[in-house]
Amino acid sequence: MDKKKFVAVIGGGQPSREEAKLAEEVGRELAKRGAILVCGGLGGVMEAACKGASSEGGITIGILPGDDSQAANPYVQIPIVTGLGYARNIAVVKSAQAVIAIGGSYGTLAEISHALQSGIPVIGLNTWSLARNNQQDKSIILAQSPTEAVNKALDLAASQKPD
Amino acid sequence: MDKKKFVAVIGGGQPSREEAKLAEEVGRELAKRGAILVCGGLGGVMEAACKGASSEGGITIGILPGDDSQAANPYVQIPIVTGLGYARNIAVVKSAQAVIAIGGSYGTLAEISHALQSGIPVIGLNTWSLARNNQQDKSIILAQSPTEAVNKALDLAASQKPD
Amino acid sequence: MDKKKFVAVIGGGQPSREEAKLAEEVGRELAKRGAILVCGGLGGVMEAACKGASSEGGITIGILPGDDSQAANPYVQIPIVTGLGYARNIAVVKSAQAVIAIGGSYGTLAEISHALQSGIPVIGLNTWSLARNNQQDKSIILAQSPTEAVNKALDLAASQKPD
Amino acid sequence: MDKKKFVAVIGGGQPSREEAKLAEEVGRELAKRGAILVCGGLGGVMEAACKGASSEGGITIGILPGDDSQAANPYVQIPIVTGLGYARNIAVVKSAQAVIAIGGSYGTLAEISHALQSGIPVIGLNTWSLARNNQQDKSIILAQSPTEAVNKALDLAASQKPD
Repeated sequence: MDKKKFVAVIGGGQPSREEAKLAEEVGRELAKRGAILVCGGLGGVMEAACKGASSEGGITIGILPGDDSQAANPYVQIPIVTGLGYARNIAVVKSAQAVIAIGGSYGTLAEISHALQSGIPVIGLNTWSLARNNQQDKSIILAQSPTEAVNKALDLAASQKPD
Repeated sequence: MDKKKFVAVIGGGQPSREEAKLAEEVGRELAKRGAILVCGGLGGVMEAACKGASSEGGITIGILPGDDSQAANPYVQIPIVTGLGYARNIAVVKSAQAVIAIGGSYGTLAEISHALQSGIPVIGLNTWSLARNNQQDKSIILAQSPTEAVNKALDLAASQKPD
Repeated sequence: MDKKKFVAVIGGGQPSREEAKLAEEVGRELAKRGAILVCGGLGGVMEAACKGASSEGGITIGILPGDDSQAANPYVQIPIVTGLGYARNIAVVKSAQAVIAIGGSYGTLAEISHALQSGIPVIGLNTWSLARNNQQDKSIILAQSPTEAVNKALDLAASQKPD
Repeated sequence: MDKKKFVAVIGGGQPSREEAKLAEEVGRELAKRGAILVCGGLGGVMEAACKGASSEGGITIGILPGDDSQAANPYVQIPIVTGLGYARNIAVVKSAQAVIAIGGSYGTLAEISHALQSGIPVIGLNTWSLARNNQQDKSIILAQSPTEAVNKALDLAASQKPD
């Protein structure tokens, strides 16, 4: 399994139908391209992405906040049980070479922030946009479709770490 | 020391001169009003706020990321040594009943996000502004001056937890 | 408050009556000697120690595992709310210059281990003893009474960090 | 990959030659039996176990303390990058249905403690033994050989979680 790319998919536990569809498509596309999916392991965007990846035979890792691997969605193959609450979000993004954010609320924003702080590229689909001191911050790379998001994520992941 | 209010001051390690001045003034004002200052314990905005609070005899808590209490700025009276890296940011905001954000980069944004996720009010001075799906998110309460920031923080802290 | 010594008191949430008495006496003695008490903030040994310290006007810090400062025992003056589960145990011991362990179960043993791993001296009252490969490990310094435990803790704390 | 058993192998970063041999044999045996190996991802016992597992085509997960996946030993296929320091030890044991401890120092003892605290069975090879209040604690299940350790771990893992 060496030299595989790890891509995190982050987003809310209660996505819109459109966001869930995007997430599933992102998961599918990542699996087709041989990338390993990392996520927070629970429902919503995380589950949809894992479902998509699984449908294409991809590998899915769920880094869980609680104490029980049974909390993982049914498409998580490798549950990492942290017992660390929201601190697990840091591990989700740090374990990836690129992050795709879909929709999401403040938890997703925290993950986006942790990724940017760690120099890990973030691709956004219908998600947060940022401004600092009234100046737009363009660190989140916009994508218009799941395929574009995955393309950008894999390109950036490749430039992140030597293959 | 019961019934004291705990207010977190968050912001970057390398603030502009203006931001450092704002932070020091916020620290001073919090101490005058009897609030306990919580921060990440290091330099920049954290140090300036602790310096201000100390100058008025206030109590300062620094929740440190590393393994050494000596890393705390000289105005931290109560160093909490976590060894948990950025996960300490979660403890900084959760230990407060209100958060004042001054300037800051992605680490500050992560702290803002964790606070909002936990329902802890955030007052912003020259800091991030947020939009989700192209709609402005007004969760960060704007303040124009340190005094206004402290007033709002203490009002909101009071409504947060029963005195 | 500078140059104060920080001493952690660790032990189980459901101590025997004897252990609770020891913990309260340790807390009282620490406060009399001007040390700041650090603990996990909950019930049992933690509460008894905080009660003892409070009765002598000492300062008490409770580093909590959950998301709510209301979970702190009533004698905690400075609640640190981590949301990090058992990882907060690491912060409890790392924030101290010496640790006093009273009774306790596996959580206490984990804290003892983290302290020893970090080079922080551990004084034991009716607590765990260790052997490795069938050779006794004498790292836990035994004490026969609360006063002896506090004496040893403060002596060792003094040698730990330059005053 | 569903229904796989996850077994953690824990132990020191600087094992004796004998301990390293035991770890490699444990890793090999786990892989032969189809279990997934979880560890802290670094050198010593962790690396030896991963090497053994890899030599039999097993899957290896390394949950790292730092910020860089490059710190993983070369036999880790799935690096989880936490940035959480020793708190990652909690995730190592919680992600497993049984733990095999080989030799080790205080870090290993902390992991043993976290496992026992969480009700996860621990099998010991040349490792710590425990006594509480001068009474031996028999929670660590002794094994005399790598094969016996793996047999016990897999039996206990099976009884832990419904297949």
